[in-house]
Amino acid sequence: MLRLCSRLLRGGAVIGHLTSWSHTGPSPLRCFSVSHSCHGHRDYSLPNATWSRHTQELYRKYEELSKIGAWRRIPSYNSSVHHMADAPPRGSRVTRLFTRNLDQDGVGFEYSMFYNVAEKRMICIFQPGDYLEGPPGYTHGGCIATILDSTLGAGAMYICGKVMTANLNINYLNPVPLGSTVIVDCHVEKVEGRKVYTRGQVRSHDDQILHTEATGLFIKLNMREVDHSTD
Amino acid sequence: MLRLCSRLLRGGAVIGHLTSWSHTGPSPLRCFSVSHSCHGHRDYSLPNATWSRHTQELYRKYEELSKIGAWRRIPSYNSSVHHMADAPPRGSRVTRLFTRNLDQDGVGFEYSMFYNVAEKRMICIFQPGDYLEGPPGYTHGGCIATILDSTLGAGAMYICGKVMTANLNINYLNPVPLGSTVIVDCHVEKVEGRKVYTRGQVRSHDDQILHTEATGLFIKLNMREVDHSTD
Repeated sequence: MLRLCSRLLRGGAVIGHLTSWSHTGPSPLRCFSVSHSCHGHRDYSLPNATWSRHTQELYRKYEELSKIGAWRRIPSYNSSVHHMADAPPRGSRVTRLFTRNLDQDGVGFEYSMFYNVAEKRMICIFQPGDYLEGPPGYTHGGCIATILDSTLGAGAMYICGKVMTANLNINYLNPVPLGSTVIVDCHVEKVEGRKVYTRGQVRSHDDQILHTEATGLFIKLNMREVDHSTD
Repeated sequence: MLRLCSRLLRGGAVIGHLTSWSHTGPSPLRCFSVSHSCHGHRDYSLPNATWSRHTQELYRKYEELSKIGAWRRIPSYNSSVHHMADAPPRGSRVTRLFTRNLDQDGVGFEYSMFYNVAEKRMICIFQPGDYLEGPPGYTHGGCIATILDSTLGAGAMYICGKVMTANLNINYLNPVPLGSTVIVDCHVEKVEGRKVYTRGQVRSHDDQILHTEATGLFIKLNMREVDHSTD
């Protein structure tokens, strides 16, 4: 796997996870602490008119917890290049982050993430819209995998720096109705060398329904270490 | 799990997989054999101008194989209700299938599936567009999970009837560049009672790169059996 990472990096690819956040070393984040916009880019993690009462209540709960310092909200843009100072030049190519690729509010992924370094936890308040359908009336299993990959991976990154997903193992227990509010609750279990082991759940907003359980294995990426590993 | 399925069904939810296709019993498919449209709905599995040469070549290969009867293409619509005769009434609510929720061709999931009952195989020719980004220039891990869930699940359904996803276990080996052409090659390994065990790979169009490996466990849903299981 180390040699694989090295090959990828040597090949010119910047392999981070999703938005390649990092909190270690010189930060590649341009605007980590900016709440409402980054150089004019909309921060999609902030509430909008399509958020349900349950979604807003959970958001306010963690916003309050953020005021006393235990939790912190992560801004969210619709392109990875808005998150990163070290993104490769894209030319005129317009790309979109998969989870922010719909123009209309409320029909896609509505979510906001908060992290707690002391608890090694990342939570995501998630409201799946009507354009994320799998079985009629319910959220697509791939959509649940996506929000789990995003939240597990963001947690791994905030604890360990840049990572890439190596494995996702997901148990689907109860389907998630479209328009409902769920909480994706993830934490880093252990770190062994370059491997970051994570675990997460998708629960209903009131914790009464366990929708999904998952583990995620992520591989830490560090240019210097990766180069050394292939000497 | 059987009791879980039963609870879901008794609760009024129609739990199928993705589009709830079925080939067993009286078919709920309205237009299984219709190639270009179903009651005027666009069939997104057909080539469009955004498909690359590699995507078109793979499509033509399986189209040719379909003429001699071994393979058969599955039509694909942007709403599950276009696939099903037994979908619940939706009122005025407009939903979209997660994998067909973008209006613009070429930026999202461009794919076409073919199945081979004799080989218990389902393949998906997949070209991820620029709005499916995870790491800069590469397809989001959740997007890969989505196309795997869709293809593994469709394979399980064409062999066993309606199913729901119980587990996905995905090993990410090499990231998939945006705009590339990959083949998602899935098959049913074994069926034990209600459990359908499947396995799949995501490979580059020329089979030179193994991008992803996965297993999927699906649970067969049959109203009569489910009712009986909870007596």
